[in-house]
Amino acid sequence: MSKRKQTYQMKTKNKVQELSVLFHFAERLAKAATKTTLPLFRTSLTVQNKKTDQTFDPVTIADRKAEISMREMIMEDYPDHGIIGEEYGSYKENAEYVWVLDPIDGTRNFISGFPLWGTLIGLLHQGQPILGLMNQPFTGEQFFAFGGQAFFKRTLLSEGIQEHQQILKTQPCNSLREALATTTSPDLFASEREQKIYDSVKKHVKNMRFGGDCYGYAMLATGRMNLVIETGLSLYDIAPLIPIVTGAGGYITDWEGNGNPKGGEILATSDAQLHKYTLDLLKKS
Amino acid sequence: MSKRKQTYQMKTKNKVQELSVLFHFAERLAKAATKTTLPLFRTSLTVQNKKTDQTFDPVTIADRKAEISMREMIMEDYPDHGIIGEEYGSYKENAEYVWVLDPIDGTRNFISGFPLWGTLIGLLHQGQPILGLMNQPFTGEQFFAFGGQAFFKRTLLSEGIQEHQQILKTQPCNSLREALATTTSPDLFASEREQKIYDSVKKHVKNMRFGGDCYGYAMLATGRMNLVIETGLSLYDIAPLIPIVTGAGGYITDWEGNGNPKGGEILATSDAQLHKYTLDLLKKS
Repeated sequence: MSKRKQTYQMKTKNKVQELSVLFHFAERLAKAATKTTLPLFRTSLTVQNKKTDQTFDPVTIADRKAEISMREMIMEDYPDHGIIGEEYGSYKENAEYVWVLDPIDGTRNFISGFPLWGTLIGLLHQGQPILGLMNQPFTGEQFFAFGGQAFFKRTLLSEGIQEHQQILKTQPCNSLREALATTTSPDLFASEREQKIYDSVKKHVKNMRFGGDCYGYAMLATGRMNLVIETGLSLYDIAPLIPIVTGAGGYITDWEGNGNPKGGEILATSDAQLHKYTLDLLKKS
Repeated sequence: MSKRKQTYQMKTKNKVQELSVLFHFAERLAKAATKTTLPLFRTSLTVQNKKTDQTFDPVTIADRKAEISMREMIMEDYPDHGIIGEEYGSYKENAEYVWVLDPIDGTRNFISGFPLWGTLIGLLHQGQPILGLMNQPFTGEQFFAFGGQAFFKRTLLSEGIQEHQQILKTQPCNSLREALATTTSPDLFASEREQKIYDSVKKHVKNMRFGGDCYGYAMLATGRMNLVIETGLSLYDIAPLIPIVTGAGGYITDWEGNGNPKGGEILATSDAQLHKYTLDLLKKS
């Protein structure tokens, strides 16, 4: 083996080891968040309204406490890393490594008692998402990705089922007519243009289901859904999910087709051809 | 104690014992259904279209096999009882006791990998629902009711949590403006009148969330949601849920306010005052 090849292999091996260490740290963050979120799930809690108008934007105690725990752990273990969180904003956001945190993605699901919320933890390296984790503590599910592969693991197991880790793989689907699609709520397409685009996609797909938040992307990666379309997202809503979707073989861009979206208008699909067809449809709508 | 009172107490005691025996049988039915549904959840399976038109009405292998298992068990243990099932229709539907079965309520949720479907098992006595069970095998949750009370039990437990049974109690809410509402999909309000009614309810409530199927009623009984509005339901979609909603202190009628609805247009709420306000709103819409 040439010295150059050997050095390359060593570098790659170190890279994977480094990512693996960072992933185990992400798991520790998720566990810390669970300690404050899960005990408050399905209990009566104070809901504060962030916005001054009458829209329903709940921020729970659980949400805030969980983010504080995770931020403290990152500052302790990785003082050079930056943090972008839903509740407490940005810290060193230009650092080489930046953690992206959404302690409870799907606060409406959380408040309504539906087990479709998740703690989202992502890691950006020079702005690129390189690691993602969606942790659902009530069902005991973890959807995660690093090193270009996506995985599923479940800790709560039914009788007779052994703990196992599974590689996630999206389902091929080269036609809109066959696509199972999802979006969190049709009401989130607020502008006339967004509503037109939503109506057009809904008209062309086989079925549109609602209420998913991060769970929709997880089900796309798991091979159950083919298309997720959303708008008005923030970086912390989407960055942790990008490696999970792409690691499972899916595609995720903004509505113009640009990769690595920072939020806003999102299209995720399970198939390259389907992604192209949908982008074409969006352009025409 | 008078002989009359003694006889009455014995009858009541026997009634509760009888219901308890019937509930344990319902649990056995649910376990049998789980054996065929859970292993097929999140696997690729053939989806047949019941309807000849292009609407998406999936009937899975799991659905059919689970109903057959439950019907066989009922015919074996309670040969005099009738059965009304989603997949295989009615059998002795005029019997004193009739079992109402929906092996997978929420087939779209099942196919999409979302853990919000459930096996619904109800028992009618002279046409009145006296027992109901909603079993969610993936999350290990049971919502059930008999003898006028509703309960929650979970068999899959997170670390450090003990198995427990909990009495279900709806959340008081005497204003539409404060109500957390849910419906499976806005698209199921097909006629102009239904759409008008849906729009009116949505406009008045605090938040409307989607995608619940039977899980919406379970969350109402659990005290998380205040209002469920739906249309186009069948007897097997709703009869098993009636004792759970009313046993938890909730209200469930058709859109005219008639109790014990057999399907069709359903309104369930967590509060008597809220129910009245909503019925008034429906009348005006």
